[in-house]
Amino acid sequence: MSKTIIAFQGEVGAYSEQAAHAFFQQDIDLSPQPSFKALFQSLAKGQANFAVVPIENSLAGSVHENYDYLLEHELPIIGEIILHISHHLMVYPGVKKEDIRRVISHPQALGQCRHFLEEWDDLLIESGYDTAGSAKMVREKELRDTAAIASRQAAGDYGLEIIASTIESNRQNYTRFLVLSRTAQTPESGGKTSIVFATKDIPGALFKSLAVFALRDINLLKIESRPLHGKPFRYYFYLDFEGSVKDEAQANAINHLQEITAFLHILGSFKSGKTIE
Amino acid sequence: MSKTIIAFQGEVGAYSEQAAHAFFQQDIDLSPQPSFKALFQSLAKGQANFAVVPIENSLAGSVHENYDYLLEHELPIIGEIILHISHHLMVYPGVKKEDIRRVISHPQALGQCRHFLEEWDDLLIESGYDTAGSAKMVREKELRDTAAIASRQAAGDYGLEIIASTIESNRQNYTRFLVLSRTAQTPESGGKTSIVFATKDIPGALFKSLAVFALRDINLLKIESRPLHGKPFRYYFYLDFEGSVKDEAQANAINHLQEITAFLHILGSFKSGKTIE
Repeated sequence: MSKTIIAFQGEVGAYSEQAAHAFFQQDIDLSPQPSFKALFQSLAKGQANFAVVPIENSLAGSVHENYDYLLEHELPIIGEIILHISHHLMVYPGVKKEDIRRVISHPQALGQCRHFLEEWDDLLIESGYDTAGSAKMVREKELRDTAAIASRQAAGDYGLEIIASTIESNRQNYTRFLVLSRTAQTPESGGKTSIVFATKDIPGALFKSLAVFALRDINLLKIESRPLHGKPFRYYFYLDFEGSVKDEAQANAINHLQEITAFLHILGSFKSGKTIE
Repeated sequence: MSKTIIAFQGEVGAYSEQAAHAFFQQDIDLSPQPSFKALFQSLAKGQANFAVVPIENSLAGSVHENYDYLLEHELPIIGEIILHISHHLMVYPGVKKEDIRRVISHPQALGQCRHFLEEWDDLLIESGYDTAGSAKMVREKELRDTAAIASRQAAGDYGLEIIASTIESNRQNYTRFLVLSRTAQTPESGGKTSIVFATKDIPGALFKSLAVFALRDINLLKIESRPLHGKPFRYYFYLDFEGSVKDEAQANAINHLQEITAFLHILGSFKSGKTIE
């Protein structure tokens, strides 16, 4: 009786790990991966059953690298989950704030806590590999002059003390994670669908592509463009819309889109994700 | 008689500097800036007459940070130029390929030369601040075990020898740079226009926004989305379209768009840029 294996990028204690627990809500085996590339590969090779992949943050925007990998690997999206991100300042047990000369974290987390950090004189701010990895380093090297910025879970995982909570400047900080598998789990109806397409080189091509949805009252949720390699300044469009490709209007829209695009791939239909505060 | 001052990000020898020379084609004073943030600020404060800003690369995609700064600073776009990017391996004079143990460059340049680098055993690959900065470091520290990947101009500027030319994997490598000023230079007709808008929270909002152009046969050139801070998973849309806001159809389209959007700002109308091979 082997447990379900979930691959994620980062160290134990990463926000992706929290997303995995929140999505599966069962006993899972976690497989931390050093990079997004390795994450997609581990699922593609069958070393994991699912992968949890951050795709956009409400402050920083899309994780464009992962949009590229979605297309490259064609691993279907089977779900999503949205996590409220909150950063905390944590230290080796017993260390006081006045002992701290250096703060380390992922550059994005450091940026999100900029106002908190700016009020602190003579502080060395250092970019680390990821948030949980920074917490791990403080623990393993027993650093007494260095604090990490990471999640509450990372503080627990690495036995660090939180000395300042919720230090991000903007509380509207959410990351949306996709859950990928090797086989699609298309809902019979409802939910949402992600696709990627490239338009033909005709006037109004993008407008016509969006019209196939608008004409059928299908709401668009997101559009993202990525470069089409080998064709400078032409793009792949990544589109999220409401409903499953098994819904009649959505199925018709996809057939219609097929007629007028040079390339079309369905990344997955799935149930819209919960938000974990 | 003071010369026109052009601010750019990076060191002397950077691709942005080449873009500045290619655009202005006159004797200019260059003002290198350490970051994109400093670049926008130097123009906003009047320390430079123009700024040259990379906005998208045909392989890596958009420079999203600069889209955010365009909105924040409202410095009008007055032109653009497209530069063919070609990378070269360069060393301190007299150094042979077999002496090299380490290669440094900007992470994006390293990625673009991955195939060339992968054929090389026992090589340490190190991320540097920028391409020209890596060349400068090899020169200043007289490094004899380290090569830099940078432009032909950087090799000349820092007196390094090119020992392998055109080492990028994909030759379709172009970067588009915008030229910003403090006052708009709107063409009477033609060229292209960049705008940014946020839709109202109504069904089909994005489709309706694009319709104002399609209904007037105005071609869309690019669409990009960026997160709207404080409103998780809502977006600003950056749109490029053909023509000037002084063209009648375009002016009408903008008025129409104003009716149906929650926010609209014109980033600039300008002559479409030349491509420098």
